[in-house]
Amino acid sequence: MIKVGVVGGTGYTGVELLRLLVLHKNVELVAVTSRSEAGTKVADIFPNLRGHLGLNYTVPDFKLLKTCDLVFFATPNGTAMTMTRELLEAGVKIIDLAADFRLRDEVLWSQWYGMAHSCPDLLAEAVYGLPEVNREQIKGARLLANPGCYPTAVQLGFLPLIEAGLIDVNSLIADVKSGVSGAGRKADVGVLLCETSENMKAYAVPGHRHLPEIKQGLNNAAGEQVALTFVPHLTPMIRGIHATLYASLKGQVQELQEIYTRRYAEEAFVDVLPTGMHPETRSVKGSNMCRISVFKPQSENTVVILSVIDNLLKGAAGQAIQNMNIMFDFRETEGLAALAVLP
Amino acid sequence: MIKVGVVGGTGYTGVELLRLLVLHKNVELVAVTSRSEAGTKVADIFPNLRGHLGLNYTVPDFKLLKTCDLVFFATPNGTAMTMTRELLEAGVKIIDLAADFRLRDEVLWSQWYGMAHSCPDLLAEAVYGLPEVNREQIKGARLLANPGCYPTAVQLGFLPLIEAGLIDVNSLIADVKSGVSGAGRKADVGVLLCETSENMKAYAVPGHRHLPEIKQGLNNAAGEQVALTFVPHLTPMIRGIHATLYASLKGQVQELQEIYTRRYAEEAFVDVLPTGMHPETRSVKGSNMCRISVFKPQSENTVVILSVIDNLLKGAAGQAIQNMNIMFDFRETEGLAALAVLP
Amino acid sequence: MIKVGVVGGTGYTGVELLRLLVLHKNVELVAVTSRSEAGTKVADIFPNLRGHLGLNYTVPDFKLLKTCDLVFFATPNGTAMTMTRELLEAGVKIIDLAADFRLRDEVLWSQWYGMAHSCPDLLAEAVYGLPEVNREQIKGARLLANPGCYPTAVQLGFLPLIEAGLIDVNSLIADVKSGVSGAGRKADVGVLLCETSENMKAYAVPGHRHLPEIKQGLNNAAGEQVALTFVPHLTPMIRGIHATLYASLKGQVQELQEIYTRRYAEEAFVDVLPTGMHPETRSVKGSNMCRISVFKPQSENTVVILSVIDNLLKGAAGQAIQNMNIMFDFRETEGLAALAVLP
Amino acid sequence: MIKVGVVGGTGYTGVELLRLLVLHKNVELVAVTSRSEAGTKVADIFPNLRGHLGLNYTVPDFKLLKTCDLVFFATPNGTAMTMTRELLEAGVKIIDLAADFRLRDEVLWSQWYGMAHSCPDLLAEAVYGLPEVNREQIKGARLLANPGCYPTAVQLGFLPLIEAGLIDVNSLIADVKSGVSGAGRKADVGVLLCETSENMKAYAVPGHRHLPEIKQGLNNAAGEQVALTFVPHLTPMIRGIHATLYASLKGQVQELQEIYTRRYAEEAFVDVLPTGMHPETRSVKGSNMCRISVFKPQSENTVVILSVIDNLLKGAAGQAIQNMNIMFDFRETEGLAALAVLP
Repeated sequence: MIKVGVVGGTGYTGVELLRLLVLHKNVELVAVTSRSEAGTKVADIFPNLRGHLGLNYTVPDFKLLKTCDLVFFATPNGTAMTMTRELLEAGVKIIDLAADFRLRDEVLWSQWYGMAHSCPDLLAEAVYGLPEVNREQIKGARLLANPGCYPTAVQLGFLPLIEAGLIDVNSLIADVKSGVSGAGRKADVGVLLCETSENMKAYAVPGHRHLPEIKQGLNNAAGEQVALTFVPHLTPMIRGIHATLYASLKGQVQELQEIYTRRYAEEAFVDVLPTGMHPETRSVKGSNMCRISVFKPQSENTVVILSVIDNLLKGAAGQAIQNMNIMFDFRETEGLAALAVLP
Repeated sequence: MIKVGVVGGTGYTGVELLRLLVLHKNVELVAVTSRSEAGTKVADIFPNLRGHLGLNYTVPDFKLLKTCDLVFFATPNGTAMTMTRELLEAGVKIIDLAADFRLRDEVLWSQWYGMAHSCPDLLAEAVYGLPEVNREQIKGARLLANPGCYPTAVQLGFLPLIEAGLIDVNSLIADVKSGVSGAGRKADVGVLLCETSENMKAYAVPGHRHLPEIKQGLNNAAGEQVALTFVPHLTPMIRGIHATLYASLKGQVQELQEIYTRRYAEEAFVDVLPTGMHPETRSVKGSNMCRISVFKPQSENTVVILSVIDNLLKGAAGQAIQNMNIMFDFRETEGLAALAVLP
Repeated sequence: MIKVGVVGGTGYTGVELLRLLVLHKNVELVAVTSRSEAGTKVADIFPNLRGHLGLNYTVPDFKLLKTCDLVFFATPNGTAMTMTRELLEAGVKIIDLAADFRLRDEVLWSQWYGMAHSCPDLLAEAVYGLPEVNREQIKGARLLANPGCYPTAVQLGFLPLIEAGLIDVNSLIADVKSGVSGAGRKADVGVLLCETSENMKAYAVPGHRHLPEIKQGLNNAAGEQVALTFVPHLTPMIRGIHATLYASLKGQVQELQEIYTRRYAEEAFVDVLPTGMHPETRSVKGSNMCRISVFKPQSENTVVILSVIDNLLKGAAGQAIQNMNIMFDFRETEGLAALAVLP
Repeated sequence: MIKVGVVGGTGYTGVELLRLLVLHKNVELVAVTSRSEAGTKVADIFPNLRGHLGLNYTVPDFKLLKTCDLVFFATPNGTAMTMTRELLEAGVKIIDLAADFRLRDEVLWSQWYGMAHSCPDLLAEAVYGLPEVNREQIKGARLLANPGCYPTAVQLGFLPLIEAGLIDVNSLIADVKSGVSGAGRKADVGVLLCETSENMKAYAVPGHRHLPEIKQGLNNAAGEQVALTFVPHLTPMIRGIHATLYASLKGQVQELQEIYTRRYAEEAFVDVLPTGMHPETRSVKGSNMCRISVFKPQSENTVVILSVIDNLLKGAAGQAIQNMNIMFDFRETEGLAALAVLP
């Protein structure tokens, strides 16, 4: 049983984390913080938690947080980095669901996130929490950078072919569709039901913050710089990411399916579908699973890979719990047994 | 004032056609046919037509249809071709909203549509009704093949760059997202609200019937065989197609925006957005407009083009009305003035 | 051709008004105001207007507004009343789509809207713009209070039975379901897609501002004070109001259907459905129509009336145009011909 | 550990049952039947079950089903009654999620369900499985009739006031809104996304099959015949029922809130909200909870009660599991711990 705090518990990743934590048998929740809602009962804001969480929101308080074994940050970018050092020094482990520690390159980080990094020396220590790549490093991590939702879906889709050296990494394309919860729970006209329902649009085509994160991961896998075109789309649904990935095969590849099934054979949360089956986001809604299909080229040598996740689970809170389980040597699937709620 | 018949008036393209025709000032509707609903008042099935359309559905009847100047077919694939010759010989013009006359190659048609073509000799005469390409031929057409929804969005997006010879046509990618009405109004578990709402999926990745239609159009524009990877997706909304198109520029191209604005400067139903603006499907919902944006590469030389239409208007019934207007020398925009219903 | 200004053109009733006005053949739009968006092109915010409206937003300016024959207010409650007197004195007619002039009782108004009324003397002059009740007064109005969306659907549903004296007005129930656009286009967490999609809830059960407005109208029809329980619900869709109304018949009433058809026989925008047919909100989506059904009691003497409108049309901007047409002696249906966009 | 069979595993209540059963620690699933899908792997139809259910669909087979301790019927009405007697005689317990055993009155049943009942003698034995009313009888049941979705939400809402004798049972009104999954997973044009999304409608106002079921339950509680007007509505969402209930208080009732909290104090799956809070269907989405609020009258003496459930959980499969737990003396909440998936 570990003591856990959640800093920033009013957003969608926050409430999803709470939903998972209150039923996790190795966890005692001791603090949920929010400056704006301090004093309010958490379950008054999120009534699905009624009967399971008696805590009120509190202002972030180092004294209380230092009593924790682990603190999750489900805060806007730029918040976790201001509290990390003091917590680490007190022996508290940290999982940041925001982007503060995802990029190893401080300059690149500042450029994309529009602020100076307050503890760049910790970037080297932070472990990027994609268990399918970094499980061993995660085991020993004090400071874990939980991956972004788009980067999770895209990396899991591309990795088998890049690691096997079978595709040209100079012309990768990731056309990715996200549900609206990816934009967070904030008062913003752009994500009103009346602006996003019965509508489809691409956004940020000139450049999205998840681009350098994805490239960093793919570069590592490729052992060279990849060139990637990444186009995110806002899709009229609450949850789900559907990545449609395109790459040029270097030559004839017969065993596409086998490459994927073999790569993820031991993974509890990656399910490679049989040949010809298309994944749907609803098949992972409410679960921590990533489902992937790979298709032989229609024309010439362009391979198509489809990868779906629930952006709030495998793309955020679920993966964070998976990382916690690895870091604290719990069963990796503990608290993540739920099957997708379908329909 | 022309006399018009609609064969197949119970599907979504059918009712959309009726909605436009009852308000079109040059049209008198004389017959709406449906075998399954014969005898029923059309407005009992589609109450939005109440007060505007007093007709009952009738079984298709050559005698009545031959009194028409124009007959629209809004039928399943394979129906129009069985009635076309007799109507043409009676001097009736035809606009087929299905696929019977879209491909010029009989063998290719049979292969994709899984049946023999009953009047292959008419394939050469049929005019492919994309006004932005074939306006002059449409003027004189007796038999018009109205383009598919995906092919309209994709061709309008790619044409300016292909015609200008600026992209490598050997690695075109069209990642296209469609609302569910594209699948038609038929009793099919796959398009229930509970199967398609709060869900995103690709389908038909191994090959979709619109692929040869798109390639035929792009081949004509390129003057050579193109290689295209086309991935359609089912999106949780009723109306709208969003095409996200990728191609490799042959070199540095400075005037991308100008190429598009110039190409469509005279077109009433293609709106090229200012640099940096992303089109949304809701900006064309209920209107015959296609809105297009083009973006400079993020990385290397991959250009991204975004093209949106309402699949039931510019992708079906609206384009059919536009073609009728051209064929009968009405004002091209007649009956198509409606602005998108937003929100 | 009249000159028209729109004060408050950034909300959903505002853009809907603009969509109708730009195609209205008797109207020249001369000003669209918004303090927050002054200087921005209107069509940059609402791209469905591209090509039809070249105006930029301006700050509200009496000089320009006084050149208008008519000014619409599509502003928050409390704004129109601060500008009304000066415009009226300059000979400008006013249609207020907000609530400033809907209640005749100043004290009641202040109580429900939480502020003092700045020109209570004008409340008596203001005409309540429900054409099916007040057409004659509307013809001569200088100052028109456009009804609320809920009040329009509820009054049109109850009026025939109340006017005929057939129901007990001491136990009326209005259970009403509204699309989310009724809440306006404002940055508010409560109307995000992720808060309202895949969700149904009642709100404001202790009392909603439209309650006194509905009661005022029903009291007038009844010639006595009615007792009404009104429960609004937020429904996961953009547009549409569905009112389900319950009342106790005073005795056996055989001719329920005839009472409704007779009451609305001359009305262009009220469609009484045949016995047994249930109205759907989508049958009025994008149109100015109200569709109504009345059902014989299931049990005892409780009659059920169903009444549907598009909250942005007959519930707001469409009704405002209808009122303008009456006030300026245009054809009442001018600019309102559009049929519902279905599906 | 009991052996369980599911007859009819291709509908929405069927898959929901499977989702719950595969994770239930006291259950071994031995058969899932479907005539139409026999031979197909269950998880190929419902990919959320991949990795948790290896069974193929089989045709219903008495030999196999008789090895079960319990058989669930998630079949269309009229199927369970043809197999019940033989299974009961073999010592198998039965939970029917359809309507075959819900009404005690054979004549009434035949009238509403349009067929003769094949084992009317069993109607008296069957226990109506609403645990909040019949827990003791459920413990000993061999044959359990699982309540309908509407009846569950409506009865739980009305019961406290009826049992306390505080309302006039001669004018009850239940205005109920259901998600589309309540209509089942069948190929029917009426429940396509394009027919039900962005739409609200009442249906079956002249009379719905759940009316006699609700009345039977309320009659029992009242000890007299109640008069109820029940209007179901189809709401554009997948899951959820929102019942808005109206009744006349017999006099001043001060302790409305206490009556509800006291009535359900010991119930694990009924949550009475604090005064003034409105329940939302999303607060129970994916969970077996019913949340209820009661409001003092707005006007005169009409009390308003709001009651929400997930129609597939507390309205179907979840309640069936709860009943199984009671029948087999498992912990009543076993396998039903999941919190609502919000957002």
